[in-house]
Amino acid sequence: MSLLYLLDLIGTVAFAASGALAGVRREMDLFGVWVLGMVTAIGGGTLRDLLLGDLPPFCLRNEIYLWLPVAVASLVFITHRRLPKIERPLLYLDAIGLGTFVVIGTGKAIAFQTGPLGAVLMGVMTGTAGGVFRDILSNEVPLIMRREIYASACIFGGALLVMLQKLQLPDNLSLPSAAASVIILRLLSINYNWSLPKAN
Amino acid sequence: MSLLYLLDLIGTVAFAASGALAGVRREMDLFGVWVLGMVTAIGGGTLRDLLLGDLPPFCLRNEIYLWLPVAVASLVFITHRRLPKIERPLLYLDAIGLGTFVVIGTGKAIAFQTGPLGAVLMGVMTGTAGGVFRDILSNEVPLIMRREIYASACIFGGALLVMLQKLQLPDNLSLPSAAASVIILRLLSINYNWSLPKAN
Amino acid sequence: MSLLYLLDLIGTVAFAASGALAGVRREMDLFGVWVLGMVTAIGGGTLRDLLLGDLPPFCLRNEIYLWLPVAVASLVFITHRRLPKIERPLLYLDAIGLGTFVVIGTGKAIAFQTGPLGAVLMGVMTGTAGGVFRDILSNEVPLIMRREIYASACIFGGALLVMLQKLQLPDNLSLPSAAASVIILRLLSINYNWSLPKAN
Repeated sequence: MSLLYLLDLIGTVAFAASGALAGVRREMDLFGVWVLGMVTAIGGGTLRDLLLGDLPPFCLRNEIYLWLPVAVASLVFITHRRLPKIERPLLYLDAIGLGTFVVIGTGKAIAFQTGPLGAVLMGVMTGTAGGVFRDILSNEVPLIMRREIYASACIFGGALLVMLQKLQLPDNLSLPSAAASVIILRLLSINYNWSLPKAN
Repeated sequence: MSLLYLLDLIGTVAFAASGALAGVRREMDLFGVWVLGMVTAIGGGTLRDLLLGDLPPFCLRNEIYLWLPVAVASLVFITHRRLPKIERPLLYLDAIGLGTFVVIGTGKAIAFQTGPLGAVLMGVMTGTAGGVFRDILSNEVPLIMRREIYASACIFGGALLVMLQKLQLPDNLSLPSAAASVIILRLLSINYNWSLPKAN
Repeated sequence: MSLLYLLDLIGTVAFAASGALAGVRREMDLFGVWVLGMVTAIGGGTLRDLLLGDLPPFCLRNEIYLWLPVAVASLVFITHRRLPKIERPLLYLDAIGLGTFVVIGTGKAIAFQTGPLGAVLMGVMTGTAGGVFRDILSNEVPLIMRREIYASACIFGGALLVMLQKLQLPDNLSLPSAAASVIILRLLSINYNWSLPKAN
């Protein structure tokens, strides 16, 4: 099992937990919690595969991407009273997932011969669309569009990967560097409460 | 015309009517009522075909799935004052549609070689995503994620079909049995007001 | 560069500006304004290409459809204080975009051999789905389903194109006529405040 695959599974668990938590907070029943967990975890990659025409999407070809969210969401549903304690570690796992998802998405788009902006866009989407679906299903304005620098980290990491691959760096150097840049930016932004400017 | 096709059309009519009613209640104009009727009726199957990569989707290959919702939604728009009387029968037709859509979705996914969880998921999605789109377009938290046992009936029916087909039962036995299980569960849950547990 | 392509780019600019303005009004940060501008401009055509199975969609094959919205949205973000003055011209550009998008969508669906209702539907969707996504991401009931005759102009134009092509009119006659019909209907409806009936 490659490191990237392991990180991908960690990200899937973290995203599923964040989705399931949103469901529990909105007093959804077990099915709603499953749906939010699953959609948050696999929504971004599924939309990417739809747009690249790589069908059926990754989660229908390797069902671990379905079973993990169901298991995690069930666990969150049962144990959520003790979960506040794990919110901080969850943020770190979430950052790992974000970096991994962006790098996988951008890398796949490059392999599918999209242009540079398209590749960055596919990476950002892989990392963020799941959370957008979660917020739409919870009837909220997507968080990412309002408050955090979350997306900038993804854009930076995606653009870095496009550049490194243009420079012909081998995958086993370019992928971890780009993923690390997203993860570090994300953790710094959490720590220092960075945010993007609003129009005024 | 096969029985399954007939039930499919009945379900399409019932789902279109429920979508159109939601539009009328929210004071949408005729176009909005058409959109909600159509999206509710064909949204689930269209999303399934997108994900399975079977494109263009069923509704663009057999236009009866477009004409029926337009006709039904127009009728609801014109006659909705007299419609409260038909809400009860509509619930029964809706249950028939649910069972049929789940079975068609799960069966198609099996034929497309997804794994067992993927097949159940495609069935549940075929039966429920149209209603989710209806609620998103009406700016509401999807009903299915909050209040009803609606989805459990779908999961049960989809899982039953996966199992019966694993046991090599012929289609003309497994499909009706699984559809009937969904329909009966759904009608019982309406009758006895069953609901899933919430996290607490 | 053909006239249709030029009109298409004008429409892309107008739709991106309308999406970006919606983001600025809801106090989104720069990323949110980009997303709304991009989704409004390319959402309809992308959904059309997904449903027709023509993947990757147009905007991943010709990146000008990505760069333009990013540039326009950035400009709106920076200069939006002076933008009220340009709202009226924007409405006219928006009408041009609407007509062009509908005609491109319907024409492409006909080329992909859908039936007549499917072709009209693909045209209407190409012209309107971007705005629907914009409203969903802004957590509002899609405007098009509530207040305006916007969609009727699209339906008329799409149906006209289907008819003209049935009559074997050459593209360089049928496409501009259908586009012009949408644009004129749209401008008249703005001018005279037309609206569709509501159910009552």
